[in-house]
Amino acid sequence: MKLYEYAMAPNARRVSVFLAEIDLQVERINVDIRGGENIKQQFKDKAVNGLIPLLELNDGTCIGESVAICRYLESISGQATSLFGDTPLEVAEIEMWHRIVEFQVMMPALQAFRNLSGIYKDRETVVPQWGEVSKQRYLAALPMLDKQLSENKYLASNRFSMADITLFSIINFMRVLKLNVPDDLPNLQRWLSETKERDSVKSTELDRAATA
Amino acid sequence: MKLYEYAMAPNARRVSVFLAEIDLQVERINVDIRGGENIKQQFKDKAVNGLIPLLELNDGTCIGESVAICRYLESISGQATSLFGDTPLEVAEIEMWHRIVEFQVMMPALQAFRNLSGIYKDRETVVPQWGEVSKQRYLAALPMLDKQLSENKYLASNRFSMADITLFSIINFMRVLKLNVPDDLPNLQRWLSETKERDSVKSTELDRAATA
Repeated sequence: MKLYEYAMAPNARRVSVFLAEIDLQVERINVDIRGGENIKQQFKDKAVNGLIPLLELNDGTCIGESVAICRYLESISGQATSLFGDTPLEVAEIEMWHRIVEFQVMMPALQAFRNLSGIYKDRETVVPQWGEVSKQRYLAALPMLDKQLSENKYLASNRFSMADITLFSIINFMRVLKLNVPDDLPNLQRWLSETKERDSVKSTELDRAATA
Repeated sequence: MKLYEYAMAPNARRVSVFLAEIDLQVERINVDIRGGENIKQQFKDKAVNGLIPLLELNDGTCIGESVAICRYLESISGQATSLFGDTPLEVAEIEMWHRIVEFQVMMPALQAFRNLSGIYKDRETVVPQWGEVSKQRYLAALPMLDKQLSENKYLASNRFSMADITLFSIINFMRVLKLNVPDDLPNLQRWLSETKERDSVKSTELDRAATA
């Protein structure tokens, strides 16, 4: 198997943390997204949407989308417990919080980044006003998480899960817009400090100096 | 159990089609979203993000997010097969296509609708230029689906799945912006015609005249 990725991207980071949590090693191949390597035909022949991360199985089957990759690798790794939950209620609560994080935190965060930085303006229309709205929506969603973490050690079902991994990858990434967790959200800050101390997070840190 | 929903919303529709597919009846309670009933405290006490659909269990536990609700109800219904896939590869392929649909079709579609119609301008900042960009991104994503459906009866793993249900609910909803599947996408049109004929889709149709 080969995992095509762009290590700096938050989606690559969440897959890396996930793999470290389940203690699975997979061959990695870096794809130069910013240089446009992913929009060339050679990569698009593998990835229907031209996006990373992408997992290529030994028989040539390609699986895109971070969460699909995580589900597949966890399934074949024979873990006794799942980062997506084990009981029907755990699965539902983790899916719920994961989706709240993805749609109300990650999507606005990424749209803020792309529309404010204009990093991909060579290949997409950039709307700075939407970037600003998205940044405000990202910040407006954080108190909901702080409230949940005031009563719970982790986001969902009293266990570390995929929801925490995705949230960490986004909050960590938003330093690119110089956005830290606000001081009036102590529970989210506590959760972030604890998450940073996990072996899976420490072992996948690319630039320790930048996170100090 | 009670399912709080707003029947006209595409997220309510996908849960309804899903429930019809697994032949499960649940008590429904309509929430007047456009009148703002969901942003009142009484509803927010149940739903952490104030969004529908929301499933309230008999013990008062509340599960938000359409897909979390579908996963939970399918788990407790004792189905022999899952609309999210059964083998690791099926689960991965369905998750992959479902996410492609959600992030590259559904998100732009809903952002186009909200920013072009301004339907929630009483409670969110509307950016018409982003609505136009989103509409173009929605349309730009459809050929990728048409290509997949040129070689496959369904979106993923040669079986009807959650990915098809979400795609149907969005394409159907986009009639509000007078957007039909373009004539140069015959495979997507074929898939749409066939999906409309499913019992689960027919039995959850609110306004047959409008879909003729």
